[in-house]
Amino acid sequence: MMNPVEIISAKRNGKELSAKEIKYFVDNYTSGDIPDYQMAAFLMAVYFNSMTADETAALTAAMLESGDRIVFDPQDKLYIDKHSSGGIGDKVSIILAPLMAACGLKVPMLSGRGLGHTGGTLDKLESITGFRTDLSIEEFKSGVDSIGCIITGQTPQIAPADRKMYALRDVTGTVESIPLICGSILSKKFAAGTNSIVFDIKCGNGAFMKTVEQANHLGQSLCDICDVMHKGAVYLITDMNQPLGNAVGNALEIDESIAALHGGGPDDLMQVVFSLGESMLKLGGIAFGEDALRLQKEKIDDGSAFEIFLKMVSYQGGDTVCLEKGKPLKPAEKIFDATVSKSGYIKSIDTYQLGQLIIKMGGGRTTVGQPIDHSVGFIIHKKIADYVDVNDTLMQIHSNGQLADDYLKQSFAGCFEICEQEMQLPVLITK
Amino acid sequence: MMNPVEIISAKRNGKELSAKEIKYFVDNYTSGDIPDYQMAAFLMAVYFNSMTADETAALTAAMLESGDRIVFDPQDKLYIDKHSSGGIGDKVSIILAPLMAACGLKVPMLSGRGLGHTGGTLDKLESITGFRTDLSIEEFKSGVDSIGCIITGQTPQIAPADRKMYALRDVTGTVESIPLICGSILSKKFAAGTNSIVFDIKCGNGAFMKTVEQANHLGQSLCDICDVMHKGAVYLITDMNQPLGNAVGNALEIDESIAALHGGGPDDLMQVVFSLGESMLKLGGIAFGEDALRLQKEKIDDGSAFEIFLKMVSYQGGDTVCLEKGKPLKPAEKIFDATVSKSGYIKSIDTYQLGQLIIKMGGGRTTVGQPIDHSVGFIIHKKIADYVDVNDTLMQIHSNGQLADDYLKQSFAGCFEICEQEMQLPVLITK
Repeated sequence: MMNPVEIISAKRNGKELSAKEIKYFVDNYTSGDIPDYQMAAFLMAVYFNSMTADETAALTAAMLESGDRIVFDPQDKLYIDKHSSGGIGDKVSIILAPLMAACGLKVPMLSGRGLGHTGGTLDKLESITGFRTDLSIEEFKSGVDSIGCIITGQTPQIAPADRKMYALRDVTGTVESIPLICGSILSKKFAAGTNSIVFDIKCGNGAFMKTVEQANHLGQSLCDICDVMHKGAVYLITDMNQPLGNAVGNALEIDESIAALHGGGPDDLMQVVFSLGESMLKLGGIAFGEDALRLQKEKIDDGSAFEIFLKMVSYQGGDTVCLEKGKPLKPAEKIFDATVSKSGYIKSIDTYQLGQLIIKMGGGRTTVGQPIDHSVGFIIHKKIADYVDVNDTLMQIHSNGQLADDYLKQSFAGCFEICEQEMQLPVLITK
Repeated sequence: MMNPVEIISAKRNGKELSAKEIKYFVDNYTSGDIPDYQMAAFLMAVYFNSMTADETAALTAAMLESGDRIVFDPQDKLYIDKHSSGGIGDKVSIILAPLMAACGLKVPMLSGRGLGHTGGTLDKLESITGFRTDLSIEEFKSGVDSIGCIITGQTPQIAPADRKMYALRDVTGTVESIPLICGSILSKKFAAGTNSIVFDIKCGNGAFMKTVEQANHLGQSLCDICDVMHKGAVYLITDMNQPLGNAVGNALEIDESIAALHGGGPDDLMQVVFSLGESMLKLGGIAFGEDALRLQKEKIDDGSAFEIFLKMVSYQGGDTVCLEKGKPLKPAEKIFDATVSKSGYIKSIDTYQLGQLIIKMGGGRTTVGQPIDHSVGFIIHKKIADYVDVNDTLMQIHSNGQLADDYLKQSFAGCFEICEQEMQLPVLITK
């Protein structure tokens, strides 16, 4: 007979819990037999004493088994998802999912909404009129198999233990725990039926992981747990000391994604897309190295990636007529520039602050369920190491007037630090 | 504006909390505005990161201010209580409170029930027919002032924050935390109006503190917090590697207490009583050293300590007619001996196990509110370092037949470890 207090005390004392004990705790919490206060004490004990890869794998398994599971063919290496730890301007999923489908993979992607200062793929896709992110499990499953990719949200039936634990962590100071973060990410991903995952661990002042050390720790933990669970996994660490690509804001990022799917994506964005794509194609056994790069470029050049994107949008109820290259999806009322007041080299960009400003403009949330303004955002013109002269445009701001233009100009310009010395280009992909 | 999650996170990150933050957290928890799950996370963070003396004093103050307070004269040094950390055969309070009252102190004693394997003073006193341990605050107050001592239980109005937190700690694996233990003890004690406290920290295999190091840590922490709160405090460390005195069991301990108040107490028990009494008389400014010892013996020899005990019992509704020296208060149905099967010296006694056996016999509780059998217990005849021959009596068992006699004989005898080497007497009072 297992006892919740003994399990809490064992974790508190630094003992390794058995898979059985972890499953008992998660199952009884999900059913309501273990109350919030015991889970809260448990989570805090995990925060302090962490979990081994085996324990975290058991936690992940218990969480994913707490609800419905989508099952594709578990032996089929082609089912591969990508997960990003979150950043500013990160529209990679929107380009990568159809691109990988065009290359022959199946991408069952369960995405999230904006979290903290970072944007969310679902919010971006909802800029497209009619686009549904609440597909049923059946719709999701048959979409992946017929089109090759689907991007949708977690349903209440998927990993309910994660939903409940996530909400509790948020109010008990137990968010920043690697095993809890891993369990939350992986339980959803594996419940959605993927057989392997490529992780894009964002690192820098606009990411949750501020240092390469932290990013490696998270990436390695995720891969270790996948290993225990016999799932394929690879992680990359990519720079988030400035926005990825040039567009930031929900509809603006769809515009940039469409451009990218037509071969017109910014270099940094495309490098990240192609590197993650290469890892996915390798995991799927489709192509390696130069071949993988050539295959991806081919699928963009011949229009097949964009075609799959249109199919996916259409399948998910979105209006494809408006998805024309070069035509803004949802223009904002006012477009004006933030300029620079002194010349020099851009030393750093306060990426976290850029994210906060987007939220203030209405483009993100401060509370769950808040409606957002899809059209606000900015197009960045200058990035780290660029030379700027007085009055050069740093970025083009797209606003609907929720905040005064001057305030926005000053606030956005204030995110750029200018110095006199030439700067080195930041390393885009560390690992 | 204070925020519970920020306070939890600050403690989690090892920051020292302000008195204001601690009071906000405790007040809002007591009122129900902070839910159990946030307090549970907070308690676990305190378990890991502990608290400074200032923080614990603030916690104690917040807890004691959460309910009604009994106020005697805060300048009057005569109001002194004694607290024991709990053991087996520890009937010191029952002797010491009337003895100190006879010496001129005022003892407002708020006692507890059995906890875990240890006995509780309230349970013992309730062996006396009619004895009430639920005095109102007014009854308590006027009893202390008219008689000189009262031993009663915590009312629901006293330190409600402690009641709520104690119950939560019990089910969240956060009992064994020095600042939380200190806050719980001191909030009740100071709410009951005492101006100083002498702590009897029990140490050994029958106590919660197993090592002198742990005992010193608890004693020093308690005194440090009292110091911050401008309360007088002293601690002694006394041995709990075997029962204190000879009688263990609720009514049997009242019998032994009555004998002690008539000058017939076992040596070890009386040494502990007199040492604690000396500390109390010193704190009260009444007598020091040899004088304090002489005064105490005098108040036993002239019958005044026992007279005050009778007054207290009578005031609290107890039947004093049955409190005759040498006449058992509540005899059990069966009395039989546990004997020894090999000769040698008693090396050790499993005191924790003795406490567990008393519970199994019905003399203690496994769940809150369970009724107990006051008459069961034992009188120990041999203690550590005593020489025993085959078939010598180790103890006299008092049973009401809840367990088979042979089982009890064997189980109790099994608590004694016999060796061939002569043993040193254990040190009774370490500090």
